[in-house]
Amino acid sequence: MTEKFDAVDIIRTKRDRGELSVDQINWVIDAYTRGVVAEEQMSALAMAIFLNGMNPDEISQWTTAMINSGETMDFSSLSKPTTDKHSTGGVGDKITLPLAPLVASYGVAVPQLSGRGLGHTGGTLDKLEAIPGWRANLSNEEILAQLESVGAVICAAGSGLAPADKKLYALRDITSTVESIPLISSSIMSKKIAEGTDSLILDVKVGSGAFMKDLQQARQLASTMVAIGKAAGTNTVALLTDMSVPLGRKIGNALEVEESVEVLAGGGPADVVELTVELAREMLLATGIEVDPRENLENGRAMDSWKAMIRAQDGDPDAPLPTSKHTETIYADEDGVVSELDALKVGYASWKLGAGRARKEDPVQAGAGVTIHAHIGEAVKAGDPLLTLHTDDEPRFEKAKESLEGAYAISTVAPARESVILDRIS
Amino acid sequence: MTEKFDAVDIIRTKRDRGELSVDQINWVIDAYTRGVVAEEQMSALAMAIFLNGMNPDEISQWTTAMINSGETMDFSSLSKPTTDKHSTGGVGDKITLPLAPLVASYGVAVPQLSGRGLGHTGGTLDKLEAIPGWRANLSNEEILAQLESVGAVICAAGSGLAPADKKLYALRDITSTVESIPLISSSIMSKKIAEGTDSLILDVKVGSGAFMKDLQQARQLASTMVAIGKAAGTNTVALLTDMSVPLGRKIGNALEVEESVEVLAGGGPADVVELTVELAREMLLATGIEVDPRENLENGRAMDSWKAMIRAQDGDPDAPLPTSKHTETIYADEDGVVSELDALKVGYASWKLGAGRARKEDPVQAGAGVTIHAHIGEAVKAGDPLLTLHTDDEPRFEKAKESLEGAYAISTVAPARESVILDRIS
Repeated sequence: MTEKFDAVDIIRTKRDRGELSVDQINWVIDAYTRGVVAEEQMSALAMAIFLNGMNPDEISQWTTAMINSGETMDFSSLSKPTTDKHSTGGVGDKITLPLAPLVASYGVAVPQLSGRGLGHTGGTLDKLEAIPGWRANLSNEEILAQLESVGAVICAAGSGLAPADKKLYALRDITSTVESIPLISSSIMSKKIAEGTDSLILDVKVGSGAFMKDLQQARQLASTMVAIGKAAGTNTVALLTDMSVPLGRKIGNALEVEESVEVLAGGGPADVVELTVELAREMLLATGIEVDPRENLENGRAMDSWKAMIRAQDGDPDAPLPTSKHTETIYADEDGVVSELDALKVGYASWKLGAGRARKEDPVQAGAGVTIHAHIGEAVKAGDPLLTLHTDDEPRFEKAKESLEGAYAISTVAPARESVILDRIS
Repeated sequence: MTEKFDAVDIIRTKRDRGELSVDQINWVIDAYTRGVVAEEQMSALAMAIFLNGMNPDEISQWTTAMINSGETMDFSSLSKPTTDKHSTGGVGDKITLPLAPLVASYGVAVPQLSGRGLGHTGGTLDKLEAIPGWRANLSNEEILAQLESVGAVICAAGSGLAPADKKLYALRDITSTVESIPLISSSIMSKKIAEGTDSLILDVKVGSGAFMKDLQQARQLASTMVAIGKAAGTNTVALLTDMSVPLGRKIGNALEVEESVEVLAGGGPADVVELTVELAREMLLATGIEVDPRENLENGRAMDSWKAMIRAQDGDPDAPLPTSKHTETIYADEDGVVSELDALKVGYASWKLGAGRARKEDPVQAGAGVTIHAHIGEAVKAGDPLLTLHTDDEPRFEKAKESLEGAYAISTVAPARESVILDRIS
């Protein structure tokens, strides 16, 4: 078969700051998926895109081509509208867990196709697997049936969605071409659009524990993704949210399930509740429902949805959650107010304790992680507990404590803590 | 074995416009040669170098690391000094053929380890293989013996020299990372320094038929290579020479041998003679010999060296050279002066006629090529022959004539033709 283009010319175009045509993008993504464009060619192209960028039309087309590289899901047979959420990832970000059943409790279908954690941010599937019996892998038929009956599904994304993105994602990881807004945004959006939702709410994290360290970059990423969504006909809104400190008081797998259940029971930390409620409000608004989502947290309907969702995937929502074999607590050495609690360092500590993995084939510990006794802005006295570390392997405490060096500070002045929501882009 | 560095960090450093350390460069080249740094990682790094550059220290170190990736030649046992020449390649550039025996006729050893042609520029080995019996492959012992006896050797470069460069060169070709001054200069200089010469004269071509189209770029490439040579302790001088029109009147394999023999016999076109003499003067000067090299062209000593060199490699210097089966001549359609004769287009025509190859496994035709009856600045009358095309396959004439479209022009004003030598950098 004669190929329509030559990868060498396409790489040269981007290398020389040219614009890639629709046909060039369609061909290069398709040919890469077929193995005609070699990994080393895509790698050079990814670096050229990293350094020279893509314009909005190129980014939209790149996303479309990645969607077209595989199958797409179709929820049009459902009797209810679908809405989906994606977070760019952060420390203690368990929001999907209370959010999906909360939104589903209003009669909306929430298909949350999720991944596992790598590095310092946890994976939604790893967290739910702390629940005895729960399984992540569902067939497409099971997903559809559960969306119709329960409304909420959190499960593993099928391997047939956007295979070009899967190949490219693995390549970017080993070639230092990860932190590129065109490549990040098209990667996220290709998977989400292939999942076939009617509307999509993006939670773009900003701060030390997030991929985007400053507000300007995060705003650019959010705008890029919203533009891709609009171009593809998916109603898309982004919230920019704070990830300078950990979200909530519990970081880990079982620990985050525990905190999510607190929120579903009408309690839980204010920041987790606020973010859950605001994201639910956006998701419901996108499907035309105007309510205050706090109601269904308070009246138990969200908890009912949660239990039904866990049971539908063979989990026991009432079984006790696993705990770690060992704990070690860090205490305040002076009186004052917690003026610093670095999300990234706490995330690393949780990872080192066994809650996360370094390579994708590594196991995770269900009970490992960090609990926060005194969060940012809270008063402490010398000798009060600050953090408790949880792990099954005692030697991990040392590494976790190294990660925590400089992670927290106590001072006499309380920092002004703003709302967890920093901006909204639609 | 634990590796000292991670390719991902090294790529990131260059991607973010950082300077690579000596240790990073040594490791990445060595690990690439060993296959520990993957092709896709080197490809991303090459694109980052292409777009963000390297400083002079990085370029020197990169060259040294490529030299250290393989074996080096050692000519210290010879009773005479060695000098070497490298041309960046052009149309009709047969200069190595008369130059090596001319310089050797003054008692200097000239080891010319050469390559084959790819694309529109011819390869020195392809040209010499037009001589019946001549062989390109010599053992290291044969090279040393011939340098001691004859003085001049033109042969294939052994595969053990700078293997990192060989891998990287092939990779650059498919990833659009060829035209980068740091990568070109380190590639050329790693091979040349590994060949172990005492001094090196570079012929950097400028103009349509050359890799460098303008003088500024060519000057930058030349300065970069001279700096690498100096840093490695090799006495290095570069001449910038004109490649806007073909060099001489004969382009092809046997055709260029024919013209070289004319020069060795004291005749030949003025531009070929000038460049041969000036390069010989530089090579001799670099070994401390101050002479006018025209003498040995005129007194027959250079011709004696040529014949001895060809015979030492089993060739018959007196055998008739192969000619093509078919010729076709293009005539002037008006009176005037040849005001344009584009080197690139004539080079393409010769390639299409069968003198060059598109892929490295293709054969070449010994007799194919182009002869120039009226060169730039020469007067013609309507009906005078301009060019003759030579090939064994008649259908190739069509393609060659397509390549020649717009290649020449006849006008009333003669263009000012300057010396073929444009500048000297030392």
